[in-house]
Amino acid sequence: MSIFLTVVPVSEAVRVVRQIAVRADCETVPVAEARGRILGRDVQAPGEIPGFARSVVDGYAVIASDTAGASEAMPAMLTCTGRILMGEPAATPVRPGECRYIPTGGVLPAGADAAAMIEYSEAIGDEVLIRKPVAPGENVIRRGEDYPEGGVVLPAGTRIDARSMGVLAAAGCDRVTVAVPPRIGIISTGNELVPASAVPGPGQVRDANTYLCSGFVEEQGAIPVRYGIVRDDRASLAAALEHAVAECDIVFLSGGSSKDDRDMCADTIARFGEVLIHGIAIAPGKPTIIGTAAKKPVIGLPGHPASAFVVLHAIGTPLLAATTGENSRERTVPSVLGQNIPSAKGRQDYVRVRFKGDTVLPVFGKSGLLNTLVQSDGMVIVPAGREGLEPGERVEVYLW
Amino acid sequence: MSIFLTVVPVSEAVRVVRQIAVRADCETVPVAEARGRILGRDVQAPGEIPGFARSVVDGYAVIASDTAGASEAMPAMLTCTGRILMGEPAATPVRPGECRYIPTGGVLPAGADAAAMIEYSEAIGDEVLIRKPVAPGENVIRRGEDYPEGGVVLPAGTRIDARSMGVLAAAGCDRVTVAVPPRIGIISTGNELVPASAVPGPGQVRDANTYLCSGFVEEQGAIPVRYGIVRDDRASLAAALEHAVAECDIVFLSGGSSKDDRDMCADTIARFGEVLIHGIAIAPGKPTIIGTAAKKPVIGLPGHPASAFVVLHAIGTPLLAATTGENSRERTVPSVLGQNIPSAKGRQDYVRVRFKGDTVLPVFGKSGLLNTLVQSDGMVIVPAGREGLEPGERVEVYLW
Repeated sequence: MSIFLTVVPVSEAVRVVRQIAVRADCETVPVAEARGRILGRDVQAPGEIPGFARSVVDGYAVIASDTAGASEAMPAMLTCTGRILMGEPAATPVRPGECRYIPTGGVLPAGADAAAMIEYSEAIGDEVLIRKPVAPGENVIRRGEDYPEGGVVLPAGTRIDARSMGVLAAAGCDRVTVAVPPRIGIISTGNELVPASAVPGPGQVRDANTYLCSGFVEEQGAIPVRYGIVRDDRASLAAALEHAVAECDIVFLSGGSSKDDRDMCADTIARFGEVLIHGIAIAPGKPTIIGTAAKKPVIGLPGHPASAFVVLHAIGTPLLAATTGENSRERTVPSVLGQNIPSAKGRQDYVRVRFKGDTVLPVFGKSGLLNTLVQSDGMVIVPAGREGLEPGERVEVYLW
Repeated sequence: MSIFLTVVPVSEAVRVVRQIAVRADCETVPVAEARGRILGRDVQAPGEIPGFARSVVDGYAVIASDTAGASEAMPAMLTCTGRILMGEPAATPVRPGECRYIPTGGVLPAGADAAAMIEYSEAIGDEVLIRKPVAPGENVIRRGEDYPEGGVVLPAGTRIDARSMGVLAAAGCDRVTVAVPPRIGIISTGNELVPASAVPGPGQVRDANTYLCSGFVEEQGAIPVRYGIVRDDRASLAAALEHAVAECDIVFLSGGSSKDDRDMCADTIARFGEVLIHGIAIAPGKPTIIGTAAKKPVIGLPGHPASAFVVLHAIGTPLLAATTGENSRERTVPSVLGQNIPSAKGRQDYVRVRFKGDTVLPVFGKSGLLNTLVQSDGMVIVPAGREGLEPGERVEVYLW
C-alpha cells in the first residue's frame, strides 16, 4: 500500500455511513423512561388540545362587548352568576350583562368569549366592576389552539427531551414507540496502551479513547459495549472484531495511529467484510476507516483523542442518526469569528473553538492533546474549498 | 391575602434557592457510569501527561539541526539506526547524522528533538533522505505538554461528559468522586388534571408537568420521583408533600395556577416549614413559590407548562447546581436579535426564541401552550430595567 491515503470528501464519507447503516427496530417504552430515545413514528393529537376554551388568568368570564369602553372612571358593571370550578364545565351559559368568576385554567362557559383579569375588577356583592375592556378571545386559550385533532405534535425521528415528554403526556401517551438503542462495540488498539487504572511504564500511555467513545455513544442515546485494549497484532485484532460484531450493531475501533497499524485495522475489517473508505479529507481525522464486518458498520477512528472526537461527531453522528432514524439535528448556532483560522484548500478542517464575548475563537493545539478538547465549546468547519476563515466572518458553531 | 403578589427580582430568588440548598454528599463511582454526574473534587494529573515526548507523525526521529536547509533538490542524508516500537522506549540515543524510524505515538529517543514526516523522506537501504527541514520540537508532543504533574485536569463541580471521561482516563481515574444525585419529588396539583393515559372528561386536561419536570430533572443529572396528581384540597396536598419531603431532597410542586390554589400551596408549605418567596418578577412564571418543608427546598411551580419550564431553568437550575456543587454552567451562546421584543419595565422577561439564519427570533405564544415551547431552541432574557429589546441587539441565548 502507498504511504498516501486515497482521501474522500466528508460528504462522501457521510453518504457511505448512511448507506451502510442498518435501521434499528422499534419498541414501545414508558414515556418516563424515554428521555434521549428517538421517536419511531409521528405522534398525533388524539383530539383537540386543549379540549375546551380555557382562561389563562384568574378573573371573570365575560362577553367582550359588555366591557367595551370600560375604564377606571366608568367601569362596566356585570352581575356575577357564580364560580367556575376547576375541572368542571359550567352548567349554564353566561348571558349579556352577566359574568362568572373563573380561575386560571377553568373552562370558559358557553356565551362568554373572553376573561377579564381580577386585577382590573372589583366585586361588590353580586355586582362586579370591570375597569378595563377586553377583546373577544382575550386571556383565553381557544379549544384546539395548542394542537388540532390529528395534528402532529412530534414527528418521527425526534430525540425525546423534557419538553417532548410534556407534549407526549398532553397528547395522551404514557407509552411511546422508539428506536431500539443500537449497541456500539468499542475497541481500543495499541501496544502502547494501558488501562486507566494502570501506571504507564516507559513509552506507555493510558487509554483515553475507550471512555471518550463510551461517553459519546451514551450522549447519542446508544449503548456502549467496551471491549478494552487489544494488542496490535492480527490475531488479537481479528478475534476482538469478530467478537464485537457478533454482539453489537456497530463497532468503533480506535487506535491504529501509525500507518502500519492502520493498514492492519483495514486488513482485519476486510477479512470480515469490506473496507469502503480509508482516508477522509478531514483534519484532524484523515486516517479514518469506514467499512463493514459481518454486514455491520465498522469505523476505524484515529488514535489521537481530539481527532477521534472530531470524527465521532462528523461521521459517527450521521451513522447513529441513520441507524435510529433520528432527524438530522446537528446542534449548530450562528456566531462570528474573532480571529482568523488558516486552513489548507481541499481539506475540510474541523477547528475546536470556544466562545468569548460575542465571538468564537479557535482553540489551536495538537490533536494528541486532551486539554484543548476540554477547553473548547464546539467546533467550526472550514469548508474544503476555503484556504481559511477571516475575523468577522459568520460561522456555524457545532456544539459538543 | 392580597390578590397582588409581593414579587422579588430573579436575582433575589436565585440567592434564596442557593441559600436553602442542602449540599449533597459525595460518592465514588466507576468513570464508565459517571456521565452527567458532578465532580466532587479537583482531579489532578498523577504525573506528567504524556510521560514522554511522543511523535505525532509517522516518520523519522531526528536532530532538527541535521535537517537545516534540506530541500527536494538537496535533501539531508541521515543513517537510519533502527525502528522505534510502540509502547517501548528506544534502547540507544540518536546521534548526529542518525535518524530512527518512529510511528505516530512512539517515544522520541534521547538525542532526537523532532520528527520528520515520512511523506517528505525516502529510505534507500539504511540511508534516509529528508527533503524538508524540521524545527526543534516539530511534530512532537513534549513530555507534560498536555498536563504537568499535579495540574488540575478537571475542577470540582465539572459536569462529566464524554470529553471529561477521556481526560479522567488519561489522568489515571477509573473511579471518580461525584455528588450523590439528589432525589427530586414531583407533585402535580389540580382538580382538572388527569394522567397521560386517561381520556379527559369535560373541563379536564392531561397532566403534562409531571413528565416535563421529570425530564428536566433527568437532564440536570438528578433523580425524579413522581408522586402523580394530587387534588386541590388541603389534606391531600399536605399528605403528598409530607410524603415527598420524607423521601426526597427537594420537592417540585406544580400547579396551583389560580390564586386560591397558589395560596393553598403556600399554606401547605408553611405548615411544614416556611414560605420565603411568593411571587418573582419573571414572566412567564410570576406566581412561583420558594420555601422549605422539613428543611428541604420546595419550589411551587406555575401550572402552565411553558411557565413551569422557564422557572425550572431560571430557578431550578441554580438550586440543583447549589445542591450538587456544579459550576455555574448556564449554557448561553451569543446571538443577534432579528425582531423586536416588547417587555414591561421592572419584570425580567424570559422570551422563548428560535434560531433563524444568523439571528434569533422570538417565539411568541401564551404560556399555556406547549407547541411554542417545542418550537423554541432556548430563551432570551429581557432585563428588568429594559422596556424591550431592539432588532440587531446582541443577546445571550440560554439553550434548552
